[in-house]
Amino acid sequence: MTTKKIPDIIIGRLPLYLRALARMEAEGAIVTSSKALGDWVGISAAQIRKDISQFGEFGKQGTGYNIKFLSEKLKEILKIDRVWDVAIVGMGDIGRGLSHYEGFLERGFRATLAFDNNPEVIGSTIRNLTVQDISEMVSTISKKEIKVAIIAVPADNAQEVAEKLVKAGIKSILNYATIIINVPEDVRVQYIDPAAHLQWMTYYL
Amino acid sequence: MTTKKIPDIIIGRLPLYLRALARMEAEGAIVTSSKALGDWVGISAAQIRKDISQFGEFGKQGTGYNIKFLSEKLKEILKIDRVWDVAIVGMGDIGRGLSHYEGFLERGFRATLAFDNNPEVIGSTIRNLTVQDISEMVSTISKKEIKVAIIAVPADNAQEVAEKLVKAGIKSILNYATIIINVPEDVRVQYIDPAAHLQWMTYYL
Repeated sequence: MTTKKIPDIIIGRLPLYLRALARMEAEGAIVTSSKALGDWVGISAAQIRKDISQFGEFGKQGTGYNIKFLSEKLKEILKIDRVWDVAIVGMGDIGRGLSHYEGFLERGFRATLAFDNNPEVIGSTIRNLTVQDISEMVSTISKKEIKVAIIAVPADNAQEVAEKLVKAGIKSILNYATIIINVPEDVRVQYIDPAAHLQWMTYYL
Repeated sequence: MTTKKIPDIIIGRLPLYLRALARMEAEGAIVTSSKALGDWVGISAAQIRKDISQFGEFGKQGTGYNIKFLSEKLKEILKIDRVWDVAIVGMGDIGRGLSHYEGFLERGFRATLAFDNNPEVIGSTIRNLTVQDISEMVSTISKKEIKVAIIAVPADNAQEVAEKLVKAGIKSILNYATIIINVPEDVRVQYIDPAAHLQWMTYYL
């Protein structure tokens, strides 16, 4: 795609552009502009142009971006022009919710493995996913060569689970536990942090 | 606090600084530097200094930031030096998970109202919260003057729920539904979008 190093903050905005483009497409739009896209995402048109131009020339001065084409390019860049298998660890309320999350499949992900340590939950089936014993986690994930996992266990267990996931070969962790986890440099962690989102908004109240 | 307009993107980073400071404090640290804070958050030291200096002089050249003091100042700025009541709409898996979310209270929020439209769920008690009929939502929220709500209903119902929340006087909405919702300009919406976080990470795989 490109050999130069793109700032991580720009990579992080691409999924938001994709989300807005999907919405525009669902509404029947064919083309869009940096201005319109920026309005959706809450970013200036200049920033949008700058971000997208990092990866090539995907729009034309004056005519804007073809929504379908730009979406496809962004999906290629983010490597979601395929479907990634995802392991969910912890089948409490959040894990169960994620197992049937509506937004995964069409956006490049599929929950294929679920783990828990609760004997009452192990072996049960939640929306086509049979919950496996967490003691089988490292071997199962390694064997299936899964690279993406979601941690949905209590905060006290999250670091231990993260270490096992790293051992199993996981390289991308989405962490719902309310704790910062430590992993090697070649493993990425993102946090789902509803309190941080709420704090962002109370500033304006 | 300040009268100049601070870019929204900077406001959005303050909760991340707070999260990192809380972790440092939990580990027993007293002071920190822009560099150390930046390493935690994944942002340059220069950006950290620039962001924080928007609000005043909270650190000293050469000695860094007192963690407790900076945390208190950030909490004041974000108006979370108090506790905000939050209404949760939709008591499926995600709503239930949020009703006992560990990270709310110490970070300025308390789930005080829960609503659903399912007769089997209405009237049940989930961790001290009695689930109320969604038909009572507008009047109850207005009466209690609650300003913050979380939408955890299916995508198909999210826009309708958002409109009712706006009618009830809600000004900050955290949306878990997989759909972009339209609200008046004086109402803020943030999205919990696990697929976007995963997409950010697959870029690096």
